[in-house]
Amino acid sequence: MDLLTQGFTREDLLQISEDKLPVLAKEVRAVIVDTVRRNGGHLGSSLGVVELTIAMLRKFDPFNDRIIFDVGHQSYPYKILTDRFDKFGTLRLKDGISGFPRRNESPADHFNTGHSSTSISAALGYAKARDLLGEKRHVIAFIGDAALINGLAFEALNYVQETNTKLIIILNDNKHSISDRIGGFSTMLARLSANTLYRRVKNAIKRRTSPKIAKSLEGFRDHIKNLVKPSNMFEELGIKYWGPFDGHNIRNTEKILELAKNYDRPLLLHFTTQKGRGLPEAEADPTKYHQLSPENEPKGKTWSEAASEIAEEIARKDDRIVCFTAAMSTGVKLEHFAKDFPRRFFDVGIAESHMLTMAAGLAAGGMRPWVFIYSTFLQRAMDQLMHDIALQNLPVVVMVDRAGLAGSDGDTHQGLLDIPWGRAIPNLHIYSPCDEDSLRNAMLRASEHDGPTLIRYPRGLMPIKKMSPIASDDGIVKIQEGAFWAMLGHGATVSTMLHARSRAGREGLFVPAVYDARRIKPLDMDALDEILTSYNMLAVLEENYMPGGLGEAVGARIAELNAAVRLLRFGVPDVCVKHATQLEQREMYGLTARNVVEQCRKYLPRHER
Amino acid sequence: MDLLTQGFTREDLLQISEDKLPVLAKEVRAVIVDTVRRNGGHLGSSLGVVELTIAMLRKFDPFNDRIIFDVGHQSYPYKILTDRFDKFGTLRLKDGISGFPRRNESPADHFNTGHSSTSISAALGYAKARDLLGEKRHVIAFIGDAALINGLAFEALNYVQETNTKLIIILNDNKHSISDRIGGFSTMLARLSANTLYRRVKNAIKRRTSPKIAKSLEGFRDHIKNLVKPSNMFEELGIKYWGPFDGHNIRNTEKILELAKNYDRPLLLHFTTQKGRGLPEAEADPTKYHQLSPENEPKGKTWSEAASEIAEEIARKDDRIVCFTAAMSTGVKLEHFAKDFPRRFFDVGIAESHMLTMAAGLAAGGMRPWVFIYSTFLQRAMDQLMHDIALQNLPVVVMVDRAGLAGSDGDTHQGLLDIPWGRAIPNLHIYSPCDEDSLRNAMLRASEHDGPTLIRYPRGLMPIKKMSPIASDDGIVKIQEGAFWAMLGHGATVSTMLHARSRAGREGLFVPAVYDARRIKPLDMDALDEILTSYNMLAVLEENYMPGGLGEAVGARIAELNAAVRLLRFGVPDVCVKHATQLEQREMYGLTARNVVEQCRKYLPRHER
Repeated sequence: MDLLTQGFTREDLLQISEDKLPVLAKEVRAVIVDTVRRNGGHLGSSLGVVELTIAMLRKFDPFNDRIIFDVGHQSYPYKILTDRFDKFGTLRLKDGISGFPRRNESPADHFNTGHSSTSISAALGYAKARDLLGEKRHVIAFIGDAALINGLAFEALNYVQETNTKLIIILNDNKHSISDRIGGFSTMLARLSANTLYRRVKNAIKRRTSPKIAKSLEGFRDHIKNLVKPSNMFEELGIKYWGPFDGHNIRNTEKILELAKNYDRPLLLHFTTQKGRGLPEAEADPTKYHQLSPENEPKGKTWSEAASEIAEEIARKDDRIVCFTAAMSTGVKLEHFAKDFPRRFFDVGIAESHMLTMAAGLAAGGMRPWVFIYSTFLQRAMDQLMHDIALQNLPVVVMVDRAGLAGSDGDTHQGLLDIPWGRAIPNLHIYSPCDEDSLRNAMLRASEHDGPTLIRYPRGLMPIKKMSPIASDDGIVKIQEGAFWAMLGHGATVSTMLHARSRAGREGLFVPAVYDARRIKPLDMDALDEILTSYNMLAVLEENYMPGGLGEAVGARIAELNAAVRLLRFGVPDVCVKHATQLEQREMYGLTARNVVEQCRKYLPRHER
Repeated sequence: MDLLTQGFTREDLLQISEDKLPVLAKEVRAVIVDTVRRNGGHLGSSLGVVELTIAMLRKFDPFNDRIIFDVGHQSYPYKILTDRFDKFGTLRLKDGISGFPRRNESPADHFNTGHSSTSISAALGYAKARDLLGEKRHVIAFIGDAALINGLAFEALNYVQETNTKLIIILNDNKHSISDRIGGFSTMLARLSANTLYRRVKNAIKRRTSPKIAKSLEGFRDHIKNLVKPSNMFEELGIKYWGPFDGHNIRNTEKILELAKNYDRPLLLHFTTQKGRGLPEAEADPTKYHQLSPENEPKGKTWSEAASEIAEEIARKDDRIVCFTAAMSTGVKLEHFAKDFPRRFFDVGIAESHMLTMAAGLAAGGMRPWVFIYSTFLQRAMDQLMHDIALQNLPVVVMVDRAGLAGSDGDTHQGLLDIPWGRAIPNLHIYSPCDEDSLRNAMLRASEHDGPTLIRYPRGLMPIKKMSPIASDDGIVKIQEGAFWAMLGHGATVSTMLHARSRAGREGLFVPAVYDARRIKPLDMDALDEILTSYNMLAVLEENYMPGGLGEAVGARIAELNAAVRLLRFGVPDVCVKHATQLEQREMYGLTARNVVEQCRKYLPRHER
């Protein structure tokens, strides 16, 4: 590294001569590739915006102006160049640099992100705050083309003209989102890039007119240009559109940004960039290199793989099954299903709300839609799950991937609300399987159920061994005998309970019975009541936020029965979960066998053999 | 009524000669006005679409084709003309006709609605189901211009071109939503109605060319027409656009619908209509006549009025306060604030998600945004509340109107999820005040709190008398003394508890202590623990879904303490709440003083004085 050396700050960036900037870009890329290969993270988006970020940071003041990234996958070069180069090696590690913008990490990060399409709304808020407080600063929303098709971004675009304020939207058009981009809007962007409409008019004029007439049409042609060229959605929404420009040309980009600074109306700058730029394998396969796993990640069959395999099994026997994803076919492992059943597969792009309501329409029309979605992104479509699916009791299956503690993406990506929010939705069945057999059982039940089902499963590898002897039972199932006390849990916590039980035995404590509540809703109340009258103490384990979780449901039942059983609850407390590995997060919140035994032993009498 | 007589069916509609249709339209309007004046309901939208509905029902088969209304405010003429004329007098009454499409009410209703902007997604689902099942039917989404700007509708519009299917979107453009419409999209619709772009090109050609040249440009002009006229957002998204047409001309509308039936690509028909048509006062003031209250509704100061007055009080002292509504300034009573503080008031249209994220941006930028929203519509923005506001701990106040049982709009409009969903959101404070003093206290606390606050209050009138002696306390407050047992509740249930206490006294039972938990989160655990050790029985009352509610939180605490107190819970059970008045709904779910005492007395020992 010649330029990017220890202690590099944004001030240093301003001192670098223009001709050396391509070298800097190369060095930034090398740091990103190296770090992401080690720690895991989002690669392609960040590689694509190195030049854009350099130009932006030379023209805008990241500490006084408000640069707001969308999603945040593309924020690595920004982090490196805003005084965080020295710490960048800790990317996504516990207590290290976050993979997304975080306000508590740097005064250059102005809005926390993770979910898509928030930047324009947030920037409008910042811009109005600036106006009302009489401040002087630029506000910039930096958004990718894939994020633009989400309804939230559109609502903001639609509202821009009402705000009467100055705002710069930088559209980073890399023609790829996570997967290929989707929908009419993308077609429009492609058309804008090619600018064919204006060319078609120009050609029409040329073809149809003699040289003499053509000359007399000179002014007219300009007129046509003004009429036709601006015909794009942004201008129709009252937002000035400039572009497209090459996002890898730093000098030119700086000039455009300088012009933009002095323009006093809402303005969208359309830059085209190449995802994965500078890394040949990523340029060639941007979907594969969108995100990398850390190099030391254990290998094996994941929950996502198992879920998609079973879905395919069931779909072979039932023609009514169709599968949905919102731009995550790689993450939820639906690529194979898409190949085998192209007519029965829908990738709607980053449009979770639409996905759920369209699934409701298919179900009302006689089909059996299965929606694959990360738990955290389902938060975007909870009203659709409630209003369009559950209230109509439609047979839609929601396959909730990355449920529970989800690891290094941080607080915006944890899957902790599906159970608390889902439990309050009428008609909804909720399963939380603990191994492949019980996942298959849940999916078979869901496929036969004439109403909505939510099946949540963790991020990462399936347990290799069978956790539960009886898969084909929806009730609360006893999977280990015990005395004096019992443990009740679901999903990933079943393995923790089994370890805790062994540990209790090793430590000479009473050995608890272990119960698996694979169906959280409706809950098997008969079995629960029996448990509550059979033991003196019950530990409930759950990998979700505790308010609204299983522990509270059990507690309410204990109190209603006036049962003499003491409850201990283990789950994720009411806090923002910081980024760390899943294992570290389980440690942080006491979801380990060691902690469970430690907490419970205070209430256990001396074991007398 | 000459044509609309008892037993009128859709078959009868087909028999009516064309020249008599305007008479029928008049009769349909008379029925609607008469019924809505009596029962309350949505007036203006339905009056505007009478002719469109007649034409649609003559050209499409409502039982085989799939006509899907958006929101459903405009579905009254459809209900009257699809075999429900005889029952229409029961509109919005318990066990009567719903004010919205309901699949269990008629085979002509294909998708339940209430929330905005679901129709295009649902119709795409129906269309794909038809294709996959090899059925023959038309699928029609019927959507108003105000609903089009919501992100959900945009996500669907964007996805249309990917579906490769036949779909008819009828855009009912009445230039008004509930309030005036908002944003760039509306401007585009207005422009389309005027069709100025094509006119401008035509005029440019005329102005700039001599007659001779003009003639040689004849073909060119057609070319320009094709290039320029289609420049609207729909065509850019791959949806054929026809219009605008007069939606009150039945004969012409029928012709257009006939053409549309035979067109085999996605098609949007743009009809302009007049909201409130046929009722002069509603034509003149469409916002006022959007919705009417039932004639016998009691008068007095509403919660909405009190909340907006107090907001204004606080905003006068704190310049940083800005207020938001999503097209509901009338409903939440912000008209006065908007007049007094025009720069600090934002109506974003039906764009709840954007509203919350923009509020987050304002808060991050140093302001204090207050968002006024109905509880049921907040469901659309829960991810924004979690991801953009709560995780960043931003000082946004969410004023949740119509929380709890909300009456005659039915299951889609109840406000029962704010507490269960809100309790699982970290950093969020939740208040549920029971009278004006405690509402003011909650709002003052919220204005001083450096983090997000949700304040929920019921639909309807404020209690006239003071419910609670100590308003300025956030804890669990004892408002009546008692022995042996206690009652704990919040919001609207405080009045019920006080009645129940009197009733218990009259019936010679132990008189319970009454506690008001005005702040649900964080809950005053010290006070709760004291209650749990002071009484033998505790009844918890809450007007929200019980899973995830206060009752479960209290139950978990009882079980953790192993306290010897029996819990009884009263709240809305895990069901879809049918339309009825609020009072009837409280009866249905046992949220009455009578039922509480009846349930509790079984566990009360004989009172010995």
